[in-house]
Amino acid sequence: MDFEPRATRRDITGTLCNPEFFNYGVEAYEACKTRSLTSDIIDEQKKVLEADLVIFQFPLYWFSVPAILKGWMDRVLCQGFAFDIPGFYDSGFLKNKLALLSFTTGGTAEMYTKNGVSGDFRYFLWPLQHGALHFCGFKVLAPQISFAPELVSEEEKRGMIASWAQRLRNIWKEEPIHCTPCWYFGQ
Amino acid sequence: MDFEPRATRRDITGTLCNPEFFNYGVEAYEACKTRSLTSDIIDEQKKVLEADLVIFQFPLYWFSVPAILKGWMDRVLCQGFAFDIPGFYDSGFLKNKLALLSFTTGGTAEMYTKNGVSGDFRYFLWPLQHGALHFCGFKVLAPQISFAPELVSEEEKRGMIASWAQRLRNIWKEEPIHCTPCWYFGQ
Repeated sequence: MDFEPRATRRDITGTLCNPEFFNYGVEAYEACKTRSLTSDIIDEQKKVLEADLVIFQFPLYWFSVPAILKGWMDRVLCQGFAFDIPGFYDSGFLKNKLALLSFTTGGTAEMYTKNGVSGDFRYFLWPLQHGALHFCGFKVLAPQISFAPELVSEEEKRGMIASWAQRLRNIWKEEPIHCTPCWYFGQ
Repeated sequence: MDFEPRATRRDITGTLCNPEFFNYGVEAYEACKTRSLTSDIIDEQKKVLEADLVIFQFPLYWFSVPAILKGWMDRVLCQGFAFDIPGFYDSGFLKNKLALLSFTTGGTAEMYTKNGVSGDFRYFLWPLQHGALHFCGFKVLAPQISFAPELVSEEEKRGMIASWAQRLRNIWKEEPIHCTPCWYFGQ
C-alpha cells in the first residue's frame, strides 16, 4: 500500500468553502460532513469504523511514526469523523474502540535509556497515544515494543514474535493504560 | 512544493545491498555513502549544508509536524548525512547549525493547558527537538508558537507576525535551549 501522506486540497472532491484561502482543517471538516472527502480517506475510515482494535505496526522513525503513517493519522482521523469540538478525549467519536502501537526500534532498550531518554522510555509516546489516539476517544493498550530486531539473534527474534503472538491471544482481556501524564512521566 | 514523504526503495538509485530483504535505514545509509540517493533528497541535503539556521514552519498536526514535513525528516536527515553511530547528539554532523520550530496551533494557549497537557506545553516537543534535531547535532532555539491564528482578531494576528519579525532581527544573538529533560518536563 502506497498511502498518500500529504494533506492537500486534492482530498476535497466537492466545492471548497473558501477557494481564496485554503485551510485544510476547515475544508476537511466540511467535506467529511458533506461526504466529499476523496475515496482513499473514506475507505480507511470505513475500516476504522469496522474495527474493535486498531493496531499500528511500524518501525520507529525519529521517535515517532514514519511519514506514511503520520499522513494516515493526519488525513483519516479528521474532525467530523474521529472527533469534534466538543467531542474529544473521553468523548471522542472512536471511544468504543481500542488502539495499540506496536513498533520496532533501531537501538536496544539500553541505548534508549542511556542516550537522553533519561531512564524512562515513554515520553515520546505522549503525542501519539494521548495527543492523537486518546484525543479521538480510543482506549489505548500498552505499546508492544520490539527492540532492535536487526541487532539480536534469530532465536531472540523468534522469541519477540512468540511473545507478541501470545499477547494477542489474550488481548481482549487487557485493560487500557491511563492516558494521563502519570503514565508517561511517572509523576 | 509537493515533497515526497514516503521512505521507500525508490529513494535508492543504485544497486541495493540486500534486494531480498529491503531495510530502508541500511540502504539509505549505504546510498548516502555512495552518493546514490535520489535527487530530491540530495537537493534538500545541499540546502541544509548551506544553512546556518533551519526554520521549520508548520501548522501543528496531532502535536507534531504534518506528514509532508515528517517525511522530510525521515528521508533527508539520514544516517551518514546528519549523524552516524557514533556521531549523534552533541557530535551529530549538523552540530554547527541552529534549528527552530515555528508553528501555528488550532487551539488557544489556554485550551492546551486545560485539556490534558497539564500545565506545561513542552512535552510534545521532545521527539522533534531532542529526539530528531538535537540527535543530528542541531542547536535548538526556543520554539516560536503562534496560537490559534484562526480564532484571533486581525489585529492580534498582525501582532503575532510583528513579534516574530522582531525576534528574527535578533535571532543570531539567541542562546539555544538546554535540550535536556529539564527543559521539557521542568524537573
